[in-house]
Amino acid sequence: MAYRGGFSDECGVFGVCDSEDAANLAYLGLYALQHRGQESAGIAALQDGEIHAEREMGYVADVFGEARLSRLPGRTAIGHVRYSTAGSSSLTNAQPIVFATGRGPIGLAHNGNLVNAREIRAMLEAKGALFTTTSDSEVIVHLIARSQAPTLAGAIAEALLDVRGAFSLVILSREGIFAARDANGIRPLSLGIREGSPVVASETCAFDLIGARYERDVEPGEIVHLTRDGFASHRFAFPVSTPCVFEHVYFARPDSMVFGRSVAASRQGFGRKLAREHPAEADVVVPVPDSGMYAALGYAEESRIPFALGLVRNHYVGRTFIEPKQAIRHFGVKVKLNPVREVVEGKRVVLVDDSIVRGTTSRKIVKMIREAGAREVHVRVSSPPTMNTCHYGIDTPTRGELIAANQSVEEIRKFIDADSLGYLSVEGMLDAFGRPQQATCTACFTGIYPVEIEEEEREKEHALDAK
Amino acid sequence: MAYRGGFSDECGVFGVCDSEDAANLAYLGLYALQHRGQESAGIAALQDGEIHAEREMGYVADVFGEARLSRLPGRTAIGHVRYSTAGSSSLTNAQPIVFATGRGPIGLAHNGNLVNAREIRAMLEAKGALFTTTSDSEVIVHLIARSQAPTLAGAIAEALLDVRGAFSLVILSREGIFAARDANGIRPLSLGIREGSPVVASETCAFDLIGARYERDVEPGEIVHLTRDGFASHRFAFPVSTPCVFEHVYFARPDSMVFGRSVAASRQGFGRKLAREHPAEADVVVPVPDSGMYAALGYAEESRIPFALGLVRNHYVGRTFIEPKQAIRHFGVKVKLNPVREVVEGKRVVLVDDSIVRGTTSRKIVKMIREAGAREVHVRVSSPPTMNTCHYGIDTPTRGELIAANQSVEEIRKFIDADSLGYLSVEGMLDAFGRPQQATCTACFTGIYPVEIEEEEREKEHALDAK
Amino acid sequence: MAYRGGFSDECGVFGVCDSEDAANLAYLGLYALQHRGQESAGIAALQDGEIHAEREMGYVADVFGEARLSRLPGRTAIGHVRYSTAGSSSLTNAQPIVFATGRGPIGLAHNGNLVNAREIRAMLEAKGALFTTTSDSEVIVHLIARSQAPTLAGAIAEALLDVRGAFSLVILSREGIFAARDANGIRPLSLGIREGSPVVASETCAFDLIGARYERDVEPGEIVHLTRDGFASHRFAFPVSTPCVFEHVYFARPDSMVFGRSVAASRQGFGRKLAREHPAEADVVVPVPDSGMYAALGYAEESRIPFALGLVRNHYVGRTFIEPKQAIRHFGVKVKLNPVREVVEGKRVVLVDDSIVRGTTSRKIVKMIREAGAREVHVRVSSPPTMNTCHYGIDTPTRGELIAANQSVEEIRKFIDADSLGYLSVEGMLDAFGRPQQATCTACFTGIYPVEIEEEEREKEHALDAK
Amino acid sequence: MAYRGGFSDECGVFGVCDSEDAANLAYLGLYALQHRGQESAGIAALQDGEIHAEREMGYVADVFGEARLSRLPGRTAIGHVRYSTAGSSSLTNAQPIVFATGRGPIGLAHNGNLVNAREIRAMLEAKGALFTTTSDSEVIVHLIARSQAPTLAGAIAEALLDVRGAFSLVILSREGIFAARDANGIRPLSLGIREGSPVVASETCAFDLIGARYERDVEPGEIVHLTRDGFASHRFAFPVSTPCVFEHVYFARPDSMVFGRSVAASRQGFGRKLAREHPAEADVVVPVPDSGMYAALGYAEESRIPFALGLVRNHYVGRTFIEPKQAIRHFGVKVKLNPVREVVEGKRVVLVDDSIVRGTTSRKIVKMIREAGAREVHVRVSSPPTMNTCHYGIDTPTRGELIAANQSVEEIRKFIDADSLGYLSVEGMLDAFGRPQQATCTACFTGIYPVEIEEEEREKEHALDAK
Repeated sequence: MAYRGGFSDECGVFGVCDSEDAANLAYLGLYALQHRGQESAGIAALQDGEIHAEREMGYVADVFGEARLSRLPGRTAIGHVRYSTAGSSSLTNAQPIVFATGRGPIGLAHNGNLVNAREIRAMLEAKGALFTTTSDSEVIVHLIARSQAPTLAGAIAEALLDVRGAFSLVILSREGIFAARDANGIRPLSLGIREGSPVVASETCAFDLIGARYERDVEPGEIVHLTRDGFASHRFAFPVSTPCVFEHVYFARPDSMVFGRSVAASRQGFGRKLAREHPAEADVVVPVPDSGMYAALGYAEESRIPFALGLVRNHYVGRTFIEPKQAIRHFGVKVKLNPVREVVEGKRVVLVDDSIVRGTTSRKIVKMIREAGAREVHVRVSSPPTMNTCHYGIDTPTRGELIAANQSVEEIRKFIDADSLGYLSVEGMLDAFGRPQQATCTACFTGIYPVEIEEEEREKEHALDAK
Repeated sequence: MAYRGGFSDECGVFGVCDSEDAANLAYLGLYALQHRGQESAGIAALQDGEIHAEREMGYVADVFGEARLSRLPGRTAIGHVRYSTAGSSSLTNAQPIVFATGRGPIGLAHNGNLVNAREIRAMLEAKGALFTTTSDSEVIVHLIARSQAPTLAGAIAEALLDVRGAFSLVILSREGIFAARDANGIRPLSLGIREGSPVVASETCAFDLIGARYERDVEPGEIVHLTRDGFASHRFAFPVSTPCVFEHVYFARPDSMVFGRSVAASRQGFGRKLAREHPAEADVVVPVPDSGMYAALGYAEESRIPFALGLVRNHYVGRTFIEPKQAIRHFGVKVKLNPVREVVEGKRVVLVDDSIVRGTTSRKIVKMIREAGAREVHVRVSSPPTMNTCHYGIDTPTRGELIAANQSVEEIRKFIDADSLGYLSVEGMLDAFGRPQQATCTACFTGIYPVEIEEEEREKEHALDAK
Repeated sequence: MAYRGGFSDECGVFGVCDSEDAANLAYLGLYALQHRGQESAGIAALQDGEIHAEREMGYVADVFGEARLSRLPGRTAIGHVRYSTAGSSSLTNAQPIVFATGRGPIGLAHNGNLVNAREIRAMLEAKGALFTTTSDSEVIVHLIARSQAPTLAGAIAEALLDVRGAFSLVILSREGIFAARDANGIRPLSLGIREGSPVVASETCAFDLIGARYERDVEPGEIVHLTRDGFASHRFAFPVSTPCVFEHVYFARPDSMVFGRSVAASRQGFGRKLAREHPAEADVVVPVPDSGMYAALGYAEESRIPFALGLVRNHYVGRTFIEPKQAIRHFGVKVKLNPVREVVEGKRVVLVDDSIVRGTTSRKIVKMIREAGAREVHVRVSSPPTMNTCHYGIDTPTRGELIAANQSVEEIRKFIDADSLGYLSVEGMLDAFGRPQQATCTACFTGIYPVEIEEEEREKEHALDAK
Repeated sequence: MAYRGGFSDECGVFGVCDSEDAANLAYLGLYALQHRGQESAGIAALQDGEIHAEREMGYVADVFGEARLSRLPGRTAIGHVRYSTAGSSSLTNAQPIVFATGRGPIGLAHNGNLVNAREIRAMLEAKGALFTTTSDSEVIVHLIARSQAPTLAGAIAEALLDVRGAFSLVILSREGIFAARDANGIRPLSLGIREGSPVVASETCAFDLIGARYERDVEPGEIVHLTRDGFASHRFAFPVSTPCVFEHVYFARPDSMVFGRSVAASRQGFGRKLAREHPAEADVVVPVPDSGMYAALGYAEESRIPFALGLVRNHYVGRTFIEPKQAIRHFGVKVKLNPVREVVEGKRVVLVDDSIVRGTTSRKIVKMIREAGAREVHVRVSSPPTMNTCHYGIDTPTRGELIAANQSVEEIRKFIDADSLGYLSVEGMLDAFGRPQQATCTACFTGIYPVEIEEEEREKEHALDAK
């Protein structure tokens, strides 16, 4: 897969407490988390008991300039980057969301997806509640505002007991920041310390950029109150802990620690396993950059076939791009990737990618490499076939669009026109990930959903299947 | 070096003749050449004998949208991307430049630098000529307009005999496109064919994106008239041919053919030579991404030390970025690069970079890698020490700023705090480049300037040296 | 007063039902109502049961372009222009506000001010309601959403019984548009018909622009449901009817019918009364354009002193303006007004303005006219001294800033350096307005507030008085 | 005519020498001259021997913000506002134009039109000159640069001897500002003093805003060098002096002194003459605002018929405006003007306008007033029928479009559906203007062109006539 067009994570979140230039640090944190959401960016900061927020469609560096950051004074701030699905792609749904409540202003940034949001919303609307977004996150603030619990921590705990699904939350209030993670801990959320100030982020790469030290993860089922004196912990649910393996396969940055593990190490491990499960007679191992890099290195290492950079990525991609009116062969892929003839000409190539979504991109890449002179192209995928929709915060195509949900491996091989095709097995993946099936969310590969899905959520998936 | 802050090429040029959607193809060509100039982008297109031009500061994809391209009708177009030096960084100097002349409108896009532009300009001003930019390229159009030669090709030839220095030019006129390259052929310029239409570009990667076939280079001392019937060749000077080796060391994209050679192959060759000249006792070879990748692979291959991705590059960099007010260790570098602790911890690391300019960035990277747990850091540079200013179109720091112009290799090693430091020799570089000294411009390494430099040009360099 | 800097109305509202291009008509309606609010503009349109809204800071013509209007499909739309006070000048408070409720989406545009909003809001927050703006209008939607009345009209009636103050409302829902006016009918709201489609607007000038026919006003205490079959009327309160005379003095456009009367006629009548109450020995009657024009004509008519255009207004004013660093005499006023020396030189001038707020502008104008050669300047004001804060939707200065609240007429005359100064009497004004005191809101002149003001509202005024 | 859509002046110019914040004063000067050109605005300022310029499409207040003005340091600056014809409406032609020449940088701002520009340009191109704009003004700078005169003043004089037509010029150079006016003095240009610093502007209203004192006009055929010691005068041609009467009829601001006369006084005089030449049996005299105001006052005065404001102008007009898709009666006019029913209902109305161009607008206004209840509408025009194209800098419709060039007064009356129609006679106009025919440019009314028109210029007119 290796570049946008397939899976897209919904969000990255960040928070910093009791520090000078809090909004500026939030900006840097979001900058490091940019890969988790490229559609909108927002920061909310607390000063004198009031929360100011700025949200806009676009990249972090485009949304925030000096002027905008200067409108976010205060020593405590949270931030959010979002990649939303086409339909709901609008400023209205950008986060952090901020509301005035009886407990003072509350800001919230959410990574994940609630599976019972519609049901709760209907109940709240019946009681006269007003909604301003179509986002599932808004119900959480309503529940907090309605709780009669004496403390805000208690109100948050009550609210989180009512919602189900995946949520890594950062909540801004007059009492500072609360960070929380669902009982399954599906999405990541890490705690750190920067010059005595507590910080929280989706991935540790945000800590690296701002010079913070990684302390520990927010635990599944835990609410952490970030204070100058450290991390005050509250439990709101019994932890089950089934972190999403796909974070390691594709989403997270390789230089991050996610769920306490190095992402780069996981990927290199997937590649080594893949080499053992699906060896190939070949001359070079070529990654689909950038996400296939570590897996390809692992494959090369294990197979002793030389690693080679046979595809170059154009790093200016990501901005608006005007399609040519004329037909240009493999155009969509070429804007992003170009083969290096010198490297692949006359060679038997092992092409390592992290996943295959619809198959159309893989097909173009294989053809492009053949046209650059490769004799054979053996495709190796560093994860199992992706056959199921994610309901926990990753924006996957519907089952009807997922090629592996509808075709056999051999059919896929034919479709992408590879000389051979091998996927990493679920066992191999889990082995390299270092966690057993029951302690991992592998739903997109196995269809085993650790949090029960409501009928309403399912419908989406089936409706689209029908197409 | 591996990322902006050191050397910067001045420009990339492109042209397409007699094709539908010429401006759209020019846009794509510039997109592929974006790495050659990120400060401004421009396209000029010919229709009904008139030239329309659009130029703006910014990235190609930001400058050109549907609306702007629609203001550039016609079947023939040229384009330009520019990276200019700070002082002259303004829209005024963006190209293509367009003038009405007695021969009709003339548009010009220029990659390179003239060494006698000031002298010619003074002579022209004395005769009453008006200038609108501070760019050296404008004198060429004046010379063409003043030539009494009966044909435009003749006028161009006359003009190019008067100017000295490096120039790869694409000229748009009512007679179509003329492409020309100085007698030394210092900057690249390649010809291709796309569905019967002739095209010209600084690098072949532009041809790949638009589906054109590479035909040949514009020869040193040659003016090529691009026509539907092919390439009509005119000679205006005896060719000397001393192409710039630095294009292969750093500037060009690895997937391009430049001066008829694969850039990726040159770089991998530099890395292999480097391994032989400066071996190291080490556990991993880590490239400084992206430009050090191929050299590092060559080093790893030759040395049999495993290649590893110990540094991750943030690819959202390049846009405006707000510096934090607070001190953050190694901040400037961290925005772009982050070490992968898992990969370097406890290891003896060979760090491969393409060049060292001021030394400050290398120093930060070495420290960053040490802080990520590396036991030893052995820096290997895939080119010789850069000691001299370029006068042929590359925006180098002054000699006073070039660390290698002022310090010994051992002093540099100490400054960047490496356990060892090795530069590729000039001989090794030329050997891998496949050309002898007398047929190559190595001025930035050796101080041997193939085109004589005027006193006025030299002054710049000395004046700044004095600092 | 005659131009911004003194009183500012808070809003203009508009609605159109069951018509093609509803958003486009709303745009035109707001364009005609631009004088009622220049800080933000917004339109909400209903299609397929959903409401889309667009709001932005700025003038109507700057906020809405083709692209934005095309995002507002549907046959029913409402709109709003706003002039808000400095403190709360932000996009957050722009209207129409839109919420999802248990009764479907509700959009609301409000002209006026509620005097018990804070009290209701506190009560709602205590029950867990979330607020997104600091505007008083939001409580109305909460009250509607919480009502258990079986119909939407009933829910609106229940809500409006709870709020007190001035409100002319246009509400958009799946059942179409509801228009309502407080029991005192302080702000205007008129109904019209355009090619069979019902329309509603703050002033009839909006009907003129779109080619609609004025039918009648929404009555005080009435809710009107706009339908294809006409206007369905509901009463929610017993009407008192005390319309704001200041709408006729200054705010409304002279070509509008407001409260069923011609504004131009009222103003001319004020001028005539003024001439009788405060005659002058003079050569010319000069209006402060534009708002003093009709009163000056009335004065000239009655006094038989010739009317003359001795002040020219720069109509490009209203946009951002950069102050010069250097002191320029009377600069602030000169940007907007310039005397015509030819007209005033050597003359005894009667200067007619609609009101004096702080006195500083009048002082500058008098001086400017003297410097242009006037021998005498007799200031005549076509309304009584403004001495009290408006709590019903007009953004007045605090009492401490109102010169007439703190100084006698003679003191004011001295301050503005006029040869004589005369204000229209309350009786004269009411006589020309054609309504008795008890059927008119004259609070800003008399301090007689027809709707009781809460302590909380009063505080604002007193707090600021203390300055 | 009274608002855009008919005649449009091409430009306003301004200059200030040796003053702090010169660019800021230029900005204010242009602001006051905004009515002379609303399409682009530009300022050029001199500092340390270099000229910096900023030009942009749009209103002065939109083009210039703090940031832009801060890029224009220095104590001497010139400015320009432009209204260009549709075809050449582009940034390229915005002024001041700036060039580097052998005499240092030269900036130029021009109001007027040269009638032999094409001829000179062809000659210059043949000699190898490059042109960057399609504006006639550029040839002046070429001629200055090519002159071998020992001084810049001499070079300017040489250049101005070669060009023919109307020009009021402000030239910025290292020697400061030169102001010049063609021998006929067709366009205005006035000199003033502001705190010891010399200033120059198209109209004196610019002096009023910045607090400068009007000194005298630049004389026809004079070049004035603005210096700290005053105005150094050079003659380059024998003065003929035929100022454009249309400046007084329509273009200039009523509060300006133009050609040493009050514009307001001229207009009031035109109105008085008109009343004598074309009396009417009527109840009210209603001006078409704003340009018909003074003439209507004059008419009312002379005829003793009461003056009344029966049409209200929407002053937010002038920005982009989205046309409704649906037909709305008289829409185009209604956006700008709305009748006041109260004022015209049942009345016999004398409608005073400054001119009739195509007749379509007048027709709509007459109909609008009738629909508002007027019994009779008697149209009175405060200038003679406009029958000829202006070649001296005013952007008139072609003769084919000018209704008076093609129809009799009676035909026009029928077309606009007036009860009667009267135009001011040429004699009456000149009488009120106070200058004889031979000392006035009345070309648009009489076809008597004081400066001979080249065939090339005439063609334009004829070509378009043919339509």
